[in-house]
Amino acid sequence: MSDLVLAADLGGTNLRMATVDAAGVVAHLVKRPVPEDVSPHQLVAFIDKIAGQVLDDVDRSRIAAIAFTAPAPVTDDFDGVLTKLPNLGSVTGMNLKVELEKLFSLPVVIENDATAAAIGENWIGASRGVENCVTVTLGTGIGGGIIINGRPIRGKDGIGGEIGHMTVEPGGRPCKCGNQGCVEEYASATALARMAVDHRHPARSSLQLYESWQQGDPIAEQIFATMGRSLGQMLAGLANALNPEMFVICGGVAEGIDAFGDHVRTEIAARAYPAAAKTGVVVKGELGDNAGIIGVARSAFVRMGTHSIEGL
Amino acid sequence: MSDLVLAADLGGTNLRMATVDAAGVVAHLVKRPVPEDVSPHQLVAFIDKIAGQVLDDVDRSRIAAIAFTAPAPVTDDFDGVLTKLPNLGSVTGMNLKVELEKLFSLPVVIENDATAAAIGENWIGASRGVENCVTVTLGTGIGGGIIINGRPIRGKDGIGGEIGHMTVEPGGRPCKCGNQGCVEEYASATALARMAVDHRHPARSSLQLYESWQQGDPIAEQIFATMGRSLGQMLAGLANALNPEMFVICGGVAEGIDAFGDHVRTEIAARAYPAAAKTGVVVKGELGDNAGIIGVARSAFVRMGTHSIEGL
Repeated sequence: MSDLVLAADLGGTNLRMATVDAAGVVAHLVKRPVPEDVSPHQLVAFIDKIAGQVLDDVDRSRIAAIAFTAPAPVTDDFDGVLTKLPNLGSVTGMNLKVELEKLFSLPVVIENDATAAAIGENWIGASRGVENCVTVTLGTGIGGGIIINGRPIRGKDGIGGEIGHMTVEPGGRPCKCGNQGCVEEYASATALARMAVDHRHPARSSLQLYESWQQGDPIAEQIFATMGRSLGQMLAGLANALNPEMFVICGGVAEGIDAFGDHVRTEIAARAYPAAAKTGVVVKGELGDNAGIIGVARSAFVRMGTHSIEGL
Repeated sequence: MSDLVLAADLGGTNLRMATVDAAGVVAHLVKRPVPEDVSPHQLVAFIDKIAGQVLDDVDRSRIAAIAFTAPAPVTDDFDGVLTKLPNLGSVTGMNLKVELEKLFSLPVVIENDATAAAIGENWIGASRGVENCVTVTLGTGIGGGIIINGRPIRGKDGIGGEIGHMTVEPGGRPCKCGNQGCVEEYASATALARMAVDHRHPARSSLQLYESWQQGDPIAEQIFATMGRSLGQMLAGLANALNPEMFVICGGVAEGIDAFGDHVRTEIAARAYPAAAKTGVVVKGELGDNAGIIGVARSAFVRMGTHSIEGL
């Protein structure tokens, strides 16, 4: 019986691969660093090797489909070609879908990584059963996935959900995306570490800053307040524009939500229409690092007809 | 044959009422100022009187439904009660749907005014056939309607599309919505007139300022550039978040789009992802003051089954 999806989260740093069943249970998880400056050919060989480890004690006939996230734009009718990969530039132009189909001789589904996280949380995570929600992935950068009427908004060019590059300071810091004042420059792990340096705080990472915050450090408190207000300003705009039921905060930085979550909520309450601010609750994601794997597996189950969600 | 909808655009200043047929043709248009501080009872009498004028030479059996826009939040399952009416506060709490049903003994459809304009433009106007688009209504204030996969995003509380209250200047001008730095404070007709005063320019309205611009006035050029950049900053955020195919500029101020449109486009190009900026063309609405009437009539035709659009 083909009851599993071989699902992977392909990032600039790591490849995480596992089996996911139709209830969203993740098993046989393997995580390995992606070789630096990997070529398309090397990436396929690397995927093949990791898949061998994941499937070491799994009957291969149980695998019904291959599901990969990619740190790249993915449209509704995605052809598989990886474009605009700031974190995995060495494989730009590669057709990941075609390569995976050749490698596994199985149907292949690819989702943008943040969109996949949103789908995962919307399936069995924090926003399960919520028709309209915005998921923010807070890590080195900021990504996002927007679900409206139960369907992800991938956008005409697969840019949909790139809320990390909405402007919060019109004349603010230059961002690598070409804009200035993006929320990513004020609320990502990178931004937290930079603000620590700016404040001559000894923390050199968002995690160290969070540990200082836990010890009552007032500078850390101030930095997380600034960070939370920037994030809240951006989300307040989306509260007015989309009036969703929920904002889900995912990604590594979400682990520190007790340091900044209330600042986010306060800023949304101050800036959005009262009804929209009250409706759009801010919660932490529940699936941790597995959100993407679970989400893209969900997409595969839906496309195979195992799960029915019109239009996912 | 019941082939017409009696459609009306109920605003804080005017009531516009007409018949609309299944092809979107507007006829028998009557426009009258809404009495100041009108009570719910007076409003019903006023509507009855105007309807009498509109239908003076129309066979009443041709009217299949009543379709009204309101300057109020309208949800997917709207019960008809008017709430949060900054421009028509004297009828707050009135159940417009029930009153109209009693008055006309016909099915009643109500849409938020800006959402209706977006639906109208999406039916037979500038964005006809476009699956994903954002419509901005530029007038005294700024409203908006967002259509994704052909369906308007009304939001959980009917706030969806309130893009005039997205922040563009975090520490900026206080807005009557309670936020500060809303794009409405920088890009509405009111904002244009205020900026003229700030610059000691003789224009006292956005129209006068536009006439100065047409004559090559450099201060007017500067003000429209500022205005266009603010609007472009907000739309660039939506270009990244939703990656739509089109931005439609409607409302009275849209008539001056040649003074500010290119500044909007330049700002979107500078701030949004290149693919999203290229895809999201900025155009002027085509239906003028009739966009709302046409749009809400469309909603009525869809709900009656005359037109089929799943979920409108």
